[in-house]
Amino acid sequence: MCLSIKFLGNKVSVSLSLSSLGNYSGGGVVAYSELQSETQRPTIDAIAPPKKKVVVLGTGWAGTSFLKGLDASLYDVQVVSPRNYFAFTPLLPSVTCGTVEARSIVEPVRNIIKKRKGEIKFWEAECVKIDAVNKKVFCRSNIEHLVGSGEFSLEYDFLVVAAGAQVNTFNTPGVKENCYFLKDVEDAQKIRLSVIDCFEKAVLPSLSEEERRSNLHFVVVGGGPTGVEFAAELHDYVLEDLIKLYPTVKDIVKITLIQSGDHILNTFDERISSFAEQKFGRDGIDVQTGSRVVKVSDKEITVNVKSTGEVCSVPHGLVVWSTGIATLPFVRDFMEEIGQAKNRVLAADEWLRVKGCESVYALGDCCTINQRKIMDDISDIFKAADKNNSGILTIEEFKGVMGDVILRYPQVELYLKKEHLLDLTNLLKDSQGNQRKEIDIEGFKQALSNVDSQVKVLPATAQVAAQQGEYLARCFNCMDKCEDHPEGPRRFRGPGHHQFRPFQYKHFGQFAPLGGEQAAAELPGDWVSMGHSTQWLWYSVYASKQVSWRTRVLVISDWTRRFIFGRDSSGV
Amino acid sequence: MCLSIKFLGNKVSVSLSLSSLGNYSGGGVVAYSELQSETQRPTIDAIAPPKKKVVVLGTGWAGTSFLKGLDASLYDVQVVSPRNYFAFTPLLPSVTCGTVEARSIVEPVRNIIKKRKGEIKFWEAECVKIDAVNKKVFCRSNIEHLVGSGEFSLEYDFLVVAAGAQVNTFNTPGVKENCYFLKDVEDAQKIRLSVIDCFEKAVLPSLSEEERRSNLHFVVVGGGPTGVEFAAELHDYVLEDLIKLYPTVKDIVKITLIQSGDHILNTFDERISSFAEQKFGRDGIDVQTGSRVVKVSDKEITVNVKSTGEVCSVPHGLVVWSTGIATLPFVRDFMEEIGQAKNRVLAADEWLRVKGCESVYALGDCCTINQRKIMDDISDIFKAADKNNSGILTIEEFKGVMGDVILRYPQVELYLKKEHLLDLTNLLKDSQGNQRKEIDIEGFKQALSNVDSQVKVLPATAQVAAQQGEYLARCFNCMDKCEDHPEGPRRFRGPGHHQFRPFQYKHFGQFAPLGGEQAAAELPGDWVSMGHSTQWLWYSVYASKQVSWRTRVLVISDWTRRFIFGRDSSGV
Repeated sequence: MCLSIKFLGNKVSVSLSLSSLGNYSGGGVVAYSELQSETQRPTIDAIAPPKKKVVVLGTGWAGTSFLKGLDASLYDVQVVSPRNYFAFTPLLPSVTCGTVEARSIVEPVRNIIKKRKGEIKFWEAECVKIDAVNKKVFCRSNIEHLVGSGEFSLEYDFLVVAAGAQVNTFNTPGVKENCYFLKDVEDAQKIRLSVIDCFEKAVLPSLSEEERRSNLHFVVVGGGPTGVEFAAELHDYVLEDLIKLYPTVKDIVKITLIQSGDHILNTFDERISSFAEQKFGRDGIDVQTGSRVVKVSDKEITVNVKSTGEVCSVPHGLVVWSTGIATLPFVRDFMEEIGQAKNRVLAADEWLRVKGCESVYALGDCCTINQRKIMDDISDIFKAADKNNSGILTIEEFKGVMGDVILRYPQVELYLKKEHLLDLTNLLKDSQGNQRKEIDIEGFKQALSNVDSQVKVLPATAQVAAQQGEYLARCFNCMDKCEDHPEGPRRFRGPGHHQFRPFQYKHFGQFAPLGGEQAAAELPGDWVSMGHSTQWLWYSVYASKQVSWRTRVLVISDWTRRFIFGRDSSGV
Repeated sequence: MCLSIKFLGNKVSVSLSLSSLGNYSGGGVVAYSELQSETQRPTIDAIAPPKKKVVVLGTGWAGTSFLKGLDASLYDVQVVSPRNYFAFTPLLPSVTCGTVEARSIVEPVRNIIKKRKGEIKFWEAECVKIDAVNKKVFCRSNIEHLVGSGEFSLEYDFLVVAAGAQVNTFNTPGVKENCYFLKDVEDAQKIRLSVIDCFEKAVLPSLSEEERRSNLHFVVVGGGPTGVEFAAELHDYVLEDLIKLYPTVKDIVKITLIQSGDHILNTFDERISSFAEQKFGRDGIDVQTGSRVVKVSDKEITVNVKSTGEVCSVPHGLVVWSTGIATLPFVRDFMEEIGQAKNRVLAADEWLRVKGCESVYALGDCCTINQRKIMDDISDIFKAADKNNSGILTIEEFKGVMGDVILRYPQVELYLKKEHLLDLTNLLKDSQGNQRKEIDIEGFKQALSNVDSQVKVLPATAQVAAQQGEYLARCFNCMDKCEDHPEGPRRFRGPGHHQFRPFQYKHFGQFAPLGGEQAAAELPGDWVSMGHSTQWLWYSVYASKQVSWRTRVLVISDWTRRFIFGRDSSGV
């Protein structure tokens, strides 16, 4: 029994760690061991086939959530990340102003993996190249001042790319050199020090009024949730803490938010968007919508106002750039290697497998799911549904196939929800609204013709990444079982079933803290909530979502500390 | 009355802020104002003489303690420091290992001065030159990337130099480039990150066993309290936290403490010194006494063993240099300007006035008090005591002068304590131990001949600096009053009394935490205490000595957090 190794199997290795898994194959090994003990007994290592090697790149939301869910005793797991910690990134804007300490939102990866079943190895290094042909990744440590080569390679059977993305500067000149970003903890810490620097420099006796104004002009580029939250945090920090310590300059501090679209928070419900704009207006934050940054120098930022074509430069003390994400260089190289050179982002299928390279999985910000369109498979689906090959589907035949269709093409469910269709058969109504009892292929096509409009690109959020990590971990945990007993929907373009259900994203809502103890939220079921109570909801959700009890306690105590003592303004 | 301005006076400015000070001159101004209101009334500014300008350099223990004690409504106070915060430096070794967070031990200077009576201006800048002739200091801001000149000068009437000192490398080659220091918060933060780097690099798969050992060899140079505490903290950090996260390298971590003297903690009682050596021995910390570092490269440290003359080089991952302090460049320039070029350290008198430059005061690590020797003034003292000019002192005449002598020459009191002489007249006993009733000048000299052996250079500790700051603030607060009614001892080399009592240091004891929740302490009255209970004493003393309630709460919560969750090991 021990030798019955399957392609994705790990039965034998499972059975060797009897205590750690169920007994569905354990008995065989015990029997085998007893048999051997009478005669010459080989070492266990000799008979145990090696575990499959899983290499995980990245320890952000996707990677960490994968590691937290994975039964690491089933695989030989190695993790590579340039940072040895997981950061609770939604709190980064809070870190920029000292509302929360940097250390309170990070959890060492080694702490996380220590608690997992099975051994997980972690290497603090950057992936520099994926060799998909030889199934190898090449890594390099960023710690250069110590002895020993920091370059090494790892072999994998499965590679999980969860490396995230980098800042997108849209090739705007001067952005890389002169802007601050909000991608990771170091970024937030730099902003914090720099804000204090701006104030300390502005109050010096040797400066002119104009120089003071320049140094205290804070510019935020990007009106998405991160940029808006940073602007709001900064406004609170200035109003509640800094002007008390720097009273001489309190009237010349200015915050400008530049957004290329017509509204800030434009991925949110428009009630939230206009609430935010009104609040910022009252707070004195200058929101410049419809403006594109064309250049940033160390002293000035140049903006093109789209409506008028006017180009103007204004001096600044600090520019925070928060406009979107771009593919990491090593992921871009990998895309070229596997024939995805034309894509903007690494594409994966609904099972998070990288297209063109099936032992590689991609999740989080570094990839996008290419959801298959139902219209591409419509004839195959019809054929599968038409059991008697009559060329006509009865309602029963239609119903018989739609369960699998809904699983395989999540856009169908979204469409039904959107159209408030409680009963599937409503799809079969003709243009006059009369229920049809039978349809041919044309009628079938017509019934499903609008469904693909609900195919959506998932946003690059922590929520998506975390759900993907969790999903993939579950797949890895039952890979063996699901090979024998596939849990996925039936295949329409081939025989049998898919091994797993495809990944399906559940949107739990979205927050936008707006400062002054107010927040806006989009909640499930198209609820919208705004104001002080929403800020308290925000506190409780963010506290509950912390990765460990340690960070939960730290974050809550940081919030408490801020209420009692205010934010710290020392340049540490 | 308003026009009766004295050299050090501030009566009028005091009287203008009636609510803020006593009424000893307030009445006059009120009367004057009423008189003026009938006729043409000049503006208050026109008749108020300007307040004396006080410039304070530095916001360490001495500067902050001075600012906390000063009645700032009496002066026009400006503070210049390259750091906008006060740091509780005795906890720096704890910051290196994350036992306490950097931010928990710092308090923004602006928070401190905001709470003071009167306005204090603060500039975050470095002093680059003191112009003692024109009573000016030249300053430069370290923030270079923002617009406006960071260079400015300030005029002073009184200058308080509390700028501290820099690390003393004893010109050992490579120390500046390759060692870490423990002078300020940034230093401690760098060490923290570097320790984690050493572990992360050491566990990488590409390293040889020897390279791993090199990277995990931590060297501490200097066996004083700071070096010893750091070695102990690091040992605890490794043992309690890091080896759990990096189990593969737990047996190859090594800590070496290099001390040039024969014992570590050699300024402490020898019971403490040997207790520490024994504890370190048990802990596996390699203490190399009698060894001098002759060179440090990025990979190796070269040590000369004094007893054998042997010179050997060992590879290291990190060297922390903690051997003593040296004068800052701008203080050295100032010393040359005022004729102190030959001194090793800036010399002040017992009233903290810089010798050769009386409007400048120096306190803390940047200066040393040149205590006047009693034997230099012995004839003058005799003359002053010998009221009837008889050339003979009676016991009464002797007693009559000794009160002032004890105040003026603190070494007398130390000597009496050391010799356990409860009664002053015991000094008059002859060599056979017989009490003399009268003495001549030779007998007087003989009686006091050993007193100057108790002249001691004060150690460069927080305790000394804080007491000096407090003392000087008190002098500044009553400068005016004490000019009319001097509170100091009588002058022996001139008429009248000294304006103030000289500074006198009270030693409240000294701690040396040794790791494993054990500490050693020298307490007042030559008590020595060692072990776990002393560590708890250490916790309570350090908590109580915090500069603000905010830092007190933070430090205590850091300690609590460490007990519950351990130290954080993320590279943030």
